[in-house]
Amino acid sequence: MPPVSPLAPERFPDLPPIAGVRAAAKACGVRYTTGRLDVALIELAPHSSVAGVFTRSLTASAPVDWCRAALAKTGGHGRAILVNAGNANAFTGKRGQETASAEVQATARALDCGAHDVLLASTGVIGEPMPAERITGHLDALAGDLAPGGWEPVARAIMTTDTFPKGATATARIDGTTVTLAGIAKGSGMIQPDMATMLAFAFTDADIAPEALRTVLREVNERTFNCITVDGDTSTSDTLLLAATGRAGNAAVTDPDDPRLADFRRALEAVMTDLAQQVVRDGEGAQKFVTIRVRGAASDPAAKRIGLAIGNSPLVKTAIAGADANWGRIVMAVGKAGERADRDRLSVAIGGTEIARDGEAVPDYDEAPVAAHMRGREIAIEVDVGVGDGRATVWTCDLTHGYIDINADYRS
Amino acid sequence: MPPVSPLAPERFPDLPPIAGVRAAAKACGVRYTTGRLDVALIELAPHSSVAGVFTRSLTASAPVDWCRAALAKTGGHGRAILVNAGNANAFTGKRGQETASAEVQATARALDCGAHDVLLASTGVIGEPMPAERITGHLDALAGDLAPGGWEPVARAIMTTDTFPKGATATARIDGTTVTLAGIAKGSGMIQPDMATMLAFAFTDADIAPEALRTVLREVNERTFNCITVDGDTSTSDTLLLAATGRAGNAAVTDPDDPRLADFRRALEAVMTDLAQQVVRDGEGAQKFVTIRVRGAASDPAAKRIGLAIGNSPLVKTAIAGADANWGRIVMAVGKAGERADRDRLSVAIGGTEIARDGEAVPDYDEAPVAAHMRGREIAIEVDVGVGDGRATVWTCDLTHGYIDINADYRS
Repeated sequence: MPPVSPLAPERFPDLPPIAGVRAAAKACGVRYTTGRLDVALIELAPHSSVAGVFTRSLTASAPVDWCRAALAKTGGHGRAILVNAGNANAFTGKRGQETASAEVQATARALDCGAHDVLLASTGVIGEPMPAERITGHLDALAGDLAPGGWEPVARAIMTTDTFPKGATATARIDGTTVTLAGIAKGSGMIQPDMATMLAFAFTDADIAPEALRTVLREVNERTFNCITVDGDTSTSDTLLLAATGRAGNAAVTDPDDPRLADFRRALEAVMTDLAQQVVRDGEGAQKFVTIRVRGAASDPAAKRIGLAIGNSPLVKTAIAGADANWGRIVMAVGKAGERADRDRLSVAIGGTEIARDGEAVPDYDEAPVAAHMRGREIAIEVDVGVGDGRATVWTCDLTHGYIDINADYRS
Repeated sequence: MPPVSPLAPERFPDLPPIAGVRAAAKACGVRYTTGRLDVALIELAPHSSVAGVFTRSLTASAPVDWCRAALAKTGGHGRAILVNAGNANAFTGKRGQETASAEVQATARALDCGAHDVLLASTGVIGEPMPAERITGHLDALAGDLAPGGWEPVARAIMTTDTFPKGATATARIDGTTVTLAGIAKGSGMIQPDMATMLAFAFTDADIAPEALRTVLREVNERTFNCITVDGDTSTSDTLLLAATGRAGNAAVTDPDDPRLADFRRALEAVMTDLAQQVVRDGEGAQKFVTIRVRGAASDPAAKRIGLAIGNSPLVKTAIAGADANWGRIVMAVGKAGERADRDRLSVAIGGTEIARDGEAVPDYDEAPVAAHMRGREIAIEVDVGVGDGRATVWTCDLTHGYIDINADYRS
């Protein structure tokens, strides 16, 4: 086991129970024989709304296929989420679908709900047959263990190469009623979500109808999970689910543009930003957390693509690992991003010090604070590409020997 | 200095002199103080045709800007190529243009030709002012040293993190006349050419008019340098120049579709494929050479994009470094490439053994030959994505600790 990331938060946050949500985790030996937790069951109160965003990969896993179909069938409702680590049930053909079906049936029996009320997520090795019976055989026990709160073991059960469990919480006011949000996520390689990160689950007791929940989730996802990258690789299994149990007692919100959702949006963005950043902080081999702010682009999406080009450049990421303020590589990445940029108006700042302006190095800039900044854990890069008003923030980590160690060995 | 790549050819090939081409190399201390060769001057006979392809980067270097302008002005002719390593003269603003201009003027004086007959290429650190006088002060000496042949020191003078000099040669028949080609190239990081690799120069004594030369060069470039990747990063300085001196005595060819060019096309593709593969074989930290053949794609360009998605995936590249036949990661890369692929018809073969077919693992395939293949130096991956007739071949290398070592230190 690699040591805990030096960028990890000091401890798992105090996540409150969410009214209408119960959870349990168990060591089922899906792949690991060390007794580590690897299956989580989460139960949602009747009538809960569920919204999901999933990988855009064309080689999506069987659980992703299932979730899409189930949410379409129920119109955005759900009663349970079953998650396992160790095997992604991806690229497993017809057998993979049968396995997913067996998991759903067993869960529906254990919780006395409909099959399409059960959502699935799997993470781990791709292309190996999924041993369904190792999960289905434990469902009655998991159902018996269901309890409110208890997020940390659930967050642990979904980890693969993660070195710490990830959780976040916030509260919001809807129409005078306080609603609570809690979320968990896992990383930590194959991370450049093209809808959501590998696996993230968020819960709230707010009463928000499916269509409104879906719209808010997609919108916030674009600015949070879709703005992180560890290695530019997009998982077959990316799944982000947001469940709203409606137990807080607010008057139900059905319109995504309802102004009463403003504070909920803010709180959801806070939770999802926190989780997304924790995924980056646990990026495989990460030693430094990098915030890339791009402005002056032709549009916000253009700014994001430039930010991701910088955040995915192996040369930029290794320079950061080496504490080298190598802004020439940042310029290179801007140049290859395929978005409009004016070379002769480009400026770059590192750690708040402008080191390039109008297309060339700032003569005699003070290197001392930049060098000190580069030696730290938190790196800030700002780029103005000089053509418009588009802006975006992207988060990534450095590329270190640790990434090679993990991935030249681990079969994921 | 890192040791020579284990994938290097046994020795620099015997490159013949090209009639109408003379060259010289010198240690000018542009950046290196170790006395290593770092400037090369190549003289072309009067009336030589010159074709070039350059980086598509929006942050192109001053020499790239100059070459584009010069070739436009002369209509595809040239008398000299001046190349240096150690400083790319990229992102150097107005001073960079003045430096390029000073180099051109000094060369034109030394060789008694027009300024626009001089082509420039620079490679090395980005964003540092280029010390022009370290080059211009040596031009008379370089001009005095010009001699036919002598390719190896010239190939050495353009190296940066390269561990071996790269050359290739071939002959072709045009209309009964034998023409000869010789080329040199350098890598070896920031390599996913988006027109040409960082620097490559090819020469022939054939008589081919500029327009025809340009067309053939672009066409062959698409299948050679534009099919390699080391790290997915595109240089600000990518430059590929092909000069034809017309000294072989063939009747001049002016039409790119002239059937008399067929054998020349073949020979040029052989030289450029050889050079492009040598660039990959000297990829930073490379321990394995990887050939990725994609078929069944919607089109040839789609196949190439899928091949590059596989060849750029850090997870695929680290798996290869670890000798792990991790085809799940290959499937993941196909899924994220953004091109059409049929998950349930996808097949993957490694080292000639089919290990996945129709969207799932081949049951009980023989792992022994695959494991043996993965331990070798030359890795062959074949993918059929099951939707059409498009095909492409892409070459890359593995991602190792060596890449991190080189790039967390070297400021390029």
